[in-house]
This record gives sequence, structure tokens and C-alpha cells, in this order.
Amino acid sequence: MPTSRINIRVITATVIAIASFGTADAAEPPAYPADYRNWTHVKSMVIHPGHPLAEPFQGIHHIYANAAARGGLANGSYADGAVFAFDLLEYDTADNASSEGERALLGVMVKDSGRYSETGGWGFEAWQGDSRTERMVNDGGAGCFSCHQDVTERDYVFTQWRN
Amino acid sequence: MPTSRINIRVITATVIAIASFGTADAAEPPAYPADYRNWTHVKSMVIHPGHPLAEPFQGIHHIYANAAARGGLANGSYADGAVFAFDLLEYDTADNASSEGERALLGVMVKDSGRYSETGGWGFEAWQGDSRTERMVNDGGAGCFSCHQDVTERDYVFTQWRN
Repeated sequence: MPTSRINIRVITATVIAIASFGTADAAEPPAYPADYRNWTHVKSMVIHPGHPLAEPFQGIHHIYANAAARGGLANGSYADGAVFAFDLLEYDTADNASSEGERALLGVMVKDSGRYSETGGWGFEAWQGDSRTERMVNDGGAGCFSCHQDVTERDYVFTQWRN
Repeated sequence: MPTSRINIRVITATVIAIASFGTADAAEPPAYPADYRNWTHVKSMVIHPGHPLAEPFQGIHHIYANAAARGGLANGSYADGAVFAFDLLEYDTADNASSEGERALLGVMVKDSGRYSETGGWGFEAWQGDSRTERMVNDGGAGCFSCHQDVTERDYVFTQWRN
């Protein structure tokens, strides 16, 4: 076997190994937060048509924090393992009352300083409707992070605890 | 001492005893639910001006269930000790988004079949704003119960669990 062919195989294998390692370590997306309905409800907000974030966030959303995220809300600094869930529901108004409708999406931000170092230590993901498999974030969270960078002083978390 | 004076004293003491017993057993109002923000958030709703319940329920409200109440949501039957909190916040709309404002009141319904037998086994109370002492229910919960009677089949609980 000529030397040149051996070299090509070694280089090819090395490139595949680096690519696989990179995918698993730096960009593995967050897992679905199966128990978020048992977490602490922090706040809610309604985004109406015409809002800059109406696509895709129109509706009523509830923010839930797991124990680590709840702890971080006190001082605006979050330990690895902190997770916020963003539960977005359709929103129907009739007879002077607005009620929750179907789920539009479920979003999360997950703190893992090592894995998500390129997006402030947070991984971002969303699932379509009630699905736990149809993922909506396809840019590694760069789009989400571009807004969350506005609150660097609170570790990229918009949500604040109210009394 | 004449017999008539003894009788009056006995009767007076008996009346006081019955009155005290009655107050403590049948009408002692619910306690403030100090830890409700850690309970399960069940749902939220917005009541706008013009709604039949706008006075006093205009705003965004969140319903929280303690563990016993969360358990009862599965079948619509509630054990003694079940408590729902109704957290009503002012609601401000600007720039196509509606956000939570100050707390308008905090309401509860507390299941105690013996104590609150005259109102379906539930005691009703509300506190003004952020106060834990300024109580708003002064009719023993009769007014609250007059609406909650509409859902006798769910043990007088309007709130239902959604997926």
C-alpha cells in the first residue's frame, strides 16, 4: 500500500474523530425537562401581535425555575444545572376574559458552563407544541443568545423574581 | 344566693361556651398560605374590565395548588388539607406586551369538611394586596360559595389541570 493512501486514511479518521468529539462536547442540545410543571412558577407575560418577539412568542408564557435556577434568581448568578422552562400557550380572549389554549412551544435554557461556553454557558432549545422530540433550535442557540446578551449582568437571564 | 342568680350565671356561662365553640369550630377563617409560591402552578387567566367578576378580580391571576390539592385535581375530589391559592396581580399592557404589576389580592380556598361544612367543606379568604393581615371576606365565605356551587361535581373547584 503506498504511503500516500495510508496518510489519507489517518487524516480522514482524525478529522471524523474531532468532528464527533466536537458535536458531543460543545453542542449536544438540552434534554426535554420532563418535570418542569413541578418547578417554581416565577412569572408570566403575554406577548401580543405586533410585538417584536410575536414570531414565535405570541401568546401567554409562564416561566418555571428548577431548584438551582430558583436559587440563582436571588443574586443573578447561576450554578451549572440551573434550568428555566418557558411554557408558551395560545391565548384566547372572549367575554372579557383571556384563557390559556393549546401549547405553542416549550423552551428551555440550561446552564452548563463547559458545554455551552460559546453561548454564555447556557444551552437553548425549544420543542414544538406538546412534542418532546420536534426540536426548533437549529443554530446551536446563537439566535437566542443574541438577545440574552442584553442582560449579561444577570448571567443572561431576563426573568426576575417578584414578591 | 337566690336560685335565680345561680341559674342566670349557669346559663350565661353556657351561652359563652357555645359561642366560643361555634366560632372556633365552624367559622375560624383560613390562615395565610405562607409558602404558596412553592406550590404547583396549575393555570393562569386574565379578567378584563367588563367581565362579571372584574370587581374585584380584574387582572391576571395564577392558581397554585398544595400537594393535597394537586392530588385532587386528578379526580375532582379533595382531601381535608387541600388548599388552592388565587394570586391576583395588576396587569399592564404597553408596546404589545402585558406584564404583571402589583398584587391586588391573594385568595385561598381551604378544604376542611368539618370546619367549613356550611360552604361545601371549603373555607374562603382573601388578603388585600401584599398584606397578610387585612382580610377581605366578611361573610364566612357565603359569597364565594354561591359561585363555586356551580361546580358541585368537581367538589366546588373551578380550576382544572391541563396538559
